[in-house]
Amino acid sequence: SHTDIDYSRLERTGCPEVIYGAGKTPDQIEEIARSLLAAGQNVLATRLSGEALDYLNRAFPAADMHPEARLMRIAPNPVPRTAGFVGIVSAGTSDQYVAEEAALTAEFLGSRVVRYRDCGVAGLHRLVSHLDSIRQATALVAVAGMEGALPSVLAGLVKAPVIAVPTSVGYGANFRGVTTLLAMMNSCANGVSVVNIDNGFGAGFNAHLINSLASRPS
Amino acid sequence: SHTDIDYSRLERTGCPEVIYGAGKTPDQIEEIARSLLAAGQNVLATRLSGEALDYLNRAFPAADMHPEARLMRIAPNPVPRTAGFVGIVSAGTSDQYVAEEAALTAEFLGSRVVRYRDCGVAGLHRLVSHLDSIRQATALVAVAGMEGALPSVLAGLVKAPVIAVPTSVGYGANFRGVTTLLAMMNSCANGVSVVNIDNGFGAGFNAHLINSLASRPS
Amino acid sequence: SHTDIDYSRLERTGCPEVIYGAGKTPDQIEEIARSLLAAGQNVLATRLSGEALDYLNRAFPAADMHPEARLMRIAPNPVPRTAGFVGIVSAGTSDQYVAEEAALTAEFLGSRVVRYRDCGVAGLHRLVSHLDSIRQATALVAVAGMEGALPSVLAGLVKAPVIAVPTSVGYGANFRGVTTLLAMMNSCANGVSVVNIDNGFGAGFNAHLINSLASRPS
Amino acid sequence: SHTDIDYSRLERTGCPEVIYGAGKTPDQIEEIARSLLAAGQNVLATRLSGEALDYLNRAFPAADMHPEARLMRIAPNPVPRTAGFVGIVSAGTSDQYVAEEAALTAEFLGSRVVRYRDCGVAGLHRLVSHLDSIRQATALVAVAGMEGALPSVLAGLVKAPVIAVPTSVGYGANFRGVTTLLAMMNSCANGVSVVNIDNGFGAGFNAHLINSLASRPS
Amino acid sequence: SHTDIDYSRLERTGCPEVIYGAGKTPDQIEEIARSLLAAGQNVLATRLSGEALDYLNRAFPAADMHPEARLMRIAPNPVPRTAGFVGIVSAGTSDQYVAEEAALTAEFLGSRVVRYRDCGVAGLHRLVSHLDSIRQATALVAVAGMEGALPSVLAGLVKAPVIAVPTSVGYGANFRGVTTLLAMMNSCANGVSVVNIDNGFGAGFNAHLINSLASRPS
Amino acid sequence: SHTDIDYSRLERTGCPEVIYGAGKTPDQIEEIARSLLAAGQNVLATRLSGEALDYLNRAFPAADMHPEARLMRIAPNPVPRTAGFVGIVSAGTSDQYVAEEAALTAEFLGSRVVRYRDCGVAGLHRLVSHLDSIRQATALVAVAGMEGALPSVLAGLVKAPVIAVPTSVGYGANFRGVTTLLAMMNSCANGVSVVNIDNGFGAGFNAHLINSLASRPS
Amino acid sequence: SHTDIDYSRLERTGCPEVIYGAGKTPDQIEEIARSLLAAGQNVLATRLSGEALDYLNRAFPAADMHPEARLMRIAPNPVPRTAGFVGIVSAGTSDQYVAEEAALTAEFLGSRVVRYRDCGVAGLHRLVSHLDSIRQATALVAVAGMEGALPSVLAGLVKAPVIAVPTSVGYGANFRGVTTLLAMMNSCANGVSVVNIDNGFGAGFNAHLINSLASRPS
Amino acid sequence: SHTDIDYSRLERTGCPEVIYGAGKTPDQIEEIARSLLAAGQNVLATRLSGEALDYLNRAFPAADMHPEARLMRIAPNPVPRTAGFVGIVSAGTSDQYVAEEAALTAEFLGSRVVRYRDCGVAGLHRLVSHLDSIRQATALVAVAGMEGALPSVLAGLVKAPVIAVPTSVGYGANFRGVTTLLAMMNSCANGVSVVNIDNGFGAGFNAHLINSLASRPS
Ligand SMILES: Nc1ncnc2c1ncn2[C@@H]1O[C@H](COP(=O)(O)O)[C@@H](O)[C@H]1O
Ligand SMILES: Nc1ncnc2c1ncn2[C@@H]1O[C@H](COP(=O)(O)O)[C@@H](O)[C@H]1O
Ligand SMILES: Nc1ncnc2c1ncn2[C@@H]1O[C@H](COP(=O)(O)O)[C@@H](O)[C@H]1O
Ligand SMILES: Nc1ncnc2c1ncn2[C@@H]1O[C@H](COP(=O)(O)O)[C@@H](O)[C@H]1O
Ligand SMILES: [Mg+2]
Ligand SMILES: [Mg+2]
Ligand SMILES: [Mg+2]
Ligand SMILES: [Mg+2]
Ligand SMILES: [Mg+2]
Ligand SMILES: [Mg+2]
Ligand SMILES: [Mg+2]
Ligand SMILES: [Mg+2]
Repeated sequence: SHTDIDYSRLERTGCPEVIYGAGKTPDQIEEIARSLLAAGQNVLATRLSGEALDYLNRAFPAADMHPEARLMRIAPNPVPRTAGFVGIVSAGTSDQYVAEEAALTAEFLGSRVVRYRDCGVAGLHRLVSHLDSIRQATALVAVAGMEGALPSVLAGLVKAPVIAVPTSVGYGANFRGVTTLLAMMNSCANGVSVVNIDNGFGAGFNAHLINSLASRPS
Repeated sequence: SHTDIDYSRLERTGCPEVIYGAGKTPDQIEEIARSLLAAGQNVLATRLSGEALDYLNRAFPAADMHPEARLMRIAPNPVPRTAGFVGIVSAGTSDQYVAEEAALTAEFLGSRVVRYRDCGVAGLHRLVSHLDSIRQATALVAVAGMEGALPSVLAGLVKAPVIAVPTSVGYGANFRGVTTLLAMMNSCANGVSVVNIDNGFGAGFNAHLINSLASRPS
Repeated sequence: SHTDIDYSRLERTGCPEVIYGAGKTPDQIEEIARSLLAAGQNVLATRLSGEALDYLNRAFPAADMHPEARLMRIAPNPVPRTAGFVGIVSAGTSDQYVAEEAALTAEFLGSRVVRYRDCGVAGLHRLVSHLDSIRQATALVAVAGMEGALPSVLAGLVKAPVIAVPTSVGYGANFRGVTTLLAMMNSCANGVSVVNIDNGFGAGFNAHLINSLASRPS
Repeated sequence: SHTDIDYSRLERTGCPEVIYGAGKTPDQIEEIARSLLAAGQNVLATRLSGEALDYLNRAFPAADMHPEARLMRIAPNPVPRTAGFVGIVSAGTSDQYVAEEAALTAEFLGSRVVRYRDCGVAGLHRLVSHLDSIRQATALVAVAGMEGALPSVLAGLVKAPVIAVPTSVGYGANFRGVTTLLAMMNSCANGVSVVNIDNGFGAGFNAHLINSLASRPS
Repeated sequence: SHTDIDYSRLERTGCPEVIYGAGKTPDQIEEIARSLLAAGQNVLATRLSGEALDYLNRAFPAADMHPEARLMRIAPNPVPRTAGFVGIVSAGTSDQYVAEEAALTAEFLGSRVVRYRDCGVAGLHRLVSHLDSIRQATALVAVAGMEGALPSVLAGLVKAPVIAVPTSVGYGANFRGVTTLLAMMNSCANGVSVVNIDNGFGAGFNAHLINSLASRPS
Repeated sequence: SHTDIDYSRLERTGCPEVIYGAGKTPDQIEEIARSLLAAGQNVLATRLSGEALDYLNRAFPAADMHPEARLMRIAPNPVPRTAGFVGIVSAGTSDQYVAEEAALTAEFLGSRVVRYRDCGVAGLHRLVSHLDSIRQATALVAVAGMEGALPSVLAGLVKAPVIAVPTSVGYGANFRGVTTLLAMMNSCANGVSVVNIDNGFGAGFNAHLINSLASRPS
Repeated sequence: SHTDIDYSRLERTGCPEVIYGAGKTPDQIEEIARSLLAAGQNVLATRLSGEALDYLNRAFPAADMHPEARLMRIAPNPVPRTAGFVGIVSAGTSDQYVAEEAALTAEFLGSRVVRYRDCGVAGLHRLVSHLDSIRQATALVAVAGMEGALPSVLAGLVKAPVIAVPTSVGYGANFRGVTTLLAMMNSCANGVSVVNIDNGFGAGFNAHLINSLASRPS
Repeated sequence: SHTDIDYSRLERTGCPEVIYGAGKTPDQIEEIARSLLAAGQNVLATRLSGEALDYLNRAFPAADMHPEARLMRIAPNPVPRTAGFVGIVSAGTSDQYVAEEAALTAEFLGSRVVRYRDCGVAGLHRLVSHLDSIRQATALVAVAGMEGALPSVLAGLVKAPVIAVPTSVGYGANFRGVTTLLAMMNSCANGVSVVNIDNGFGAGFNAHLINSLASRPS
């Protein structure tokens, strides 16, 4: 095999190696997935092409396929569920792919997740109407494109840490999410940190880490 | 005199030539101001250094000096006051210089002005508490630095057009207001247009143009 | 339905939610349009692909289809026409898609519109020949690519506010309209504000807002 | 007073408003600090100039001054100390100002803090020699300039979430920390999120939020 | 002497080596100037600091000092004057330093020069009023800051080639002339080429080259 | 017809309107070409797609088609040939499309043209071997991609003005010619001015303007 | 033939001209290859499309084809093998194309090569496990995408010079390798120099130059 | 002491830790220097301010001070001299500070060094006149600002590897050396690798590494 898999990552960092599907052929992904399963680890594969989703669906009948988030989960080993939950707040329809990647990642790792959609700041009443529930979350993910104002507005209203995910939704001077990322880095509200453009996986991962900490004895 | 003043601008565009003080010596500014006064026009000079403010204060006893906005107004000719008003909504303390430049410009041109300060999106209740009054404005100016979310939030709550002014308030990945400007160009709310970084003058000018239109018989 | 439509936007901001077609499937657009119609609102859908235009043309026999501007309007509810008009001044042939998006948006919202084409600054006589008419407009939209000089030249000749729209027409150091946008932000003329690259919709919206203000009793 | 202080922030977000000293005069800072104290809140003021540090030192004899981090703390109200601790890992001497801002912020908010200095990746043995201790931290802050590799290396070795802070230490193609920030956004390791350049305050705040969650009953 | 002067440049390229004063001490400049004079060549030194201007004024009583353009000329050898002339068209007061650098350079090399000031595009009538004279020029230099529209407007009205010089006059999204340079590179008019920001010397040099060609027998 | 052709451009600027083919359909190009021919003008159309080249070849049997430069010329009116010539110096094979656009444009306008290929600076002997001939040119065009060093090296060896054309040949940190353009703007040699990336047309136009000046009585 | 091949390059620089396949047709590549072979030189062609690989495979039965690195080698002339070796250290699977381009180039020129794969810094143990072997290399190439930390970590552990190659592997704020390149330019470790994004060829070339120097008598 | 010095670097990487003086106080530098001396290592300190140079000159009577390169060397331990030499080729007077930093660094580490000044590409004869000597160098450093063409021209003429150092010499669209750096990354010549802007230290270090390899038995 060509790839030198980092099996000890699970022990070292608390999470198995996750397969980043972009730029890998379906059979390369299959091979890595089989190695991880053989090593007794659960499998998460993200950024899968339509072709890879089809191929892997046939290759792994037990897999849990999510075309809307372009990912696959195979979890033979049960993972204990957290008491607290991660809230995934997203701005618009076009941000759903990224929001789902975050949600499904956090669930894969063991977090309970609640989703809050269509909370864009151009119609604040929608965010406000969910606020009582949102304030129960242990950790929050805020997913937005364009001017990326959602994390600032959200963090000003809650106590939980907010992981901001800029999406590449926008056009013109948006530069495929770069404007959004920069705006989020400049948030005037406290309690916001940022991951890469469209990096729903990273946001879900961080939010789960935080959420799982709240469940362990300190 | 070295400068070829555009006296016909008042007739052509409805506004006299305004003196942009940056990069001009105090006596150059004085000379241009005297020419405009001699031609029967009112004088507005912006971006004045401390030194220029002192010099001009002595040179023109009748002038109305505004160090907090670095500008000077001399208005021997009365200007009719508009029925409607321009609302100037700003986010934080550091945005005040720009907000005042906008306010004093709009007033110079004939608009009534109402100021709404400390309306940053990290504490939404402050903006919301002013909303009934803000909704009476004919035209709005939104002044903010950092992530520049204020115009989006504001425009989603009102009917009036919003002129957004990014300020150079911020640090790191703010790039002296460039991030703010780009975020504002990507506003997800309708009814927002944008002027240059720290361009309070331009925002006040545009808001006055709109406000004065609402007062003329259509 | 997956989308949480902002029905109260019409009341809150004076304009119904407009469907941004980019990145939506034809049937998603159909579904949102039907919801808006069912809620008694008029429908404007922009950025439609060729496929979406065909599909929606069949789905809504009463729709007013505009392939040249990639948009669709369905307006069962009559909108009162403004007394004044919006002037849409554009530079070249390649700017027409954006200019038409602006024009059709302003008309959809109730404005009368007059179009002035091929007014690029490399042949000033063309702009100058329309000047008497242009000076009658209540609000102006200036659409240009490349060096984006049109709004500056135009604003120096008229009293009305000018909404500048940079287009992505150009090559090399144009960066798909970014150079044009930046040039427009730096306009040396007064009365210019700017919307995002290719954002004809936003320009038409702002120009209509201003134009409609001039018709209401102040 | 000119400033509309957000007193309810403590209740809403779990943290009082913090005074950002850059661009404020010493007496403006004093005034805000006195208002917060009068409202029964603790005071943290960051980014203080040398002049402001001197002035405030005289104005508030009870204040805890930190010139090496350019901040001041006044904490009449005791804050319960967390069981777990925040680890602040920094790369080089020049990163100390930012690292200390993070450490002192986290302590102000109630976290225990341990500092790990001179852990730059050009001499890995220094980081490795602290690893047993670092692995006990509930949350980690990684402070580095130049190529910003520290968060990636660190996150690959630990389970705790890592808040990365790019510093403006570097020259040439470093662009005052922008290269560092971008590198950190692209970290190949899991469990990293990023705050603005030199934003030690934000990193300390986020790390404390996470650390305090681990102490509350879930 | 530390510098290896390129004495053959005059023969090779038709022009002596010109002293770029920025970053050189007054006595380094004096030394190079003396070497050139000793080699029988005329001397042009640009970008001189105030201190260098004073020093060189004393060192070379025969020198022709131009503080307004920060340059010095010493021309013991007569240069034949061209029949045609170079026209230097500039937009505003703040562009004068650069325009004069261009004018004085072209004169130094032998061109007759005519200056047209305050021709900014926000008041077109000023450019138009000079058009009959401008059309007599063999080569044109267009100097402008901000949106840099002047070369486009000018080139659309004349037959002569236009050398465009962006200046660093502007603020905010002007980026010290970068926006202006990019706009000029995108000129929609024919017959425009561009030199570096504030490079009056280069523009005067190119315009003279062209002007002198028109005087030689073809 | 939709397009408002600028027929007076020939008289005003000495050159007919040239058809920029990018983004125009073949029949739009045909229509403009027929209008120009009907007005007694010669036709140059650039940036033609393969499809447009085929279509126009059939539509205009008298046309002179140049697929290697993607342009078409139709010249029923004889143009007097210049005495001097334009030299087109190019660096590599991949720059040929742009170099030919320059050469064919200059010829269309009346210039004699000589081409010098494969003169890239990594093998200086090739440029040097042509130097005697190159030094006879009245005006030079230098076409290069990547680091764009050719214009500097060339201008240091000749008396004629050099129009530099950056090409989009390169990869990685070349940014489709932006690095090349910026390098050329910073040329340390005198007598260089620059046109947009891949703008062979503009370079040929400028070089012809200069070349034709040298032929007219001054 | 259209191309003026630089046959003397081998003698001048120690290496024959190498064919850069991007943007050349298969038969252009064949023609240049045949000319080089006819001149008695070995042939290396890089950046070959799939189509070119197939075509050249048929055209040159003796060629050594490497689709995984998109290159072809034809080496009728034996090249002496170096005593020392070049180590090619790469971070992840997606960097293999570039790493192989470097390895095969260095071999083509005469170097022995050892490859070290999957040495990304998120799992340091993998790099560390190869360290004894890596420390034997005369010159090192470090190939990485994303945050580009590998060269810094590597150079801190070894004595040999490290040629860093940023790859375009990444997304979002990676900008196709620009972030990686900038990070590598800012390496805090000594002994690192950098080549263009994805420029495996350049890295292999430089590493071979260094490696071959170590074999010659000094 | 606050700093954790990397004493094992000499053994690990073949070179002692070098003191980067920027941002350190004179007494911090003195302290680190004394520690290194006490540990039996030679001392090189770079980027020293005028104040630090004076202070250290007094503190270390045995030091070898180089104000023209802003560095200090203290070398109680003799270093064996290499047989081959490093050639430092620089373009202009303003590049001397960086060129000297490279030269003195390479000498400090044990290399013989030959300097070639004023070799800018605008006057090629100067570079060419040194070519016989330059071709004897084992490794070359090319130092240039502005368009950065020197490394390309040089590498096309020699067999030795070329370490290119962009300098921040330039103005306007030079961006303090960024254009130069990008141009050098795009060199069309083989055998060039690049270090950070103004990083003479890094270039001298790399060139010495290579030069010393050529002296060891392979
Ligand atoms: N062409 C357009 N350009 C910019 N914004 C638009 C455009 N068309 C519609 N919109 C805005 O996009 C919003 C709808 O976004 P979405 O929820 O994604 O459909 C509407 O509220 C409109 O204000
Ligand atoms: N060093 C810092 N970096 C970033 N944000 C800060 C810093 N110090 C304080 N803040 C934030 O700035 C806000 C106050 O801004 P202002 O109203 O301008 O004083 C506070 O709410 C803090 O959350
Ligand atoms: N290849 C080219 N590059 C740059 N400008 C061109 C080119 N070809 C034609 N033009 C210019 O584009 C203008 C025509 O633009 P359009 O009206 O869009 O056809 C002409 O006046 C020419 O000056
Ligand atoms: N002029 C210089 N440019 C770049 N890096 C340098 C320079 N001088 C010293 N260094 C490096 O900076 C490191 C020391 O950084 P510091 O710990 O901040 O003193 C040393 O290991 C050197 O490798
Ligand atoms: Mg909060
Ligand atoms: Mg609104
Ligand atoms: Mg106007
Ligand atoms: Mg981790
Ligand atoms: Mg012209
Ligand atoms: Mg020359
Ligand atoms: Mg090393
Ligand atoms: Mg070479």
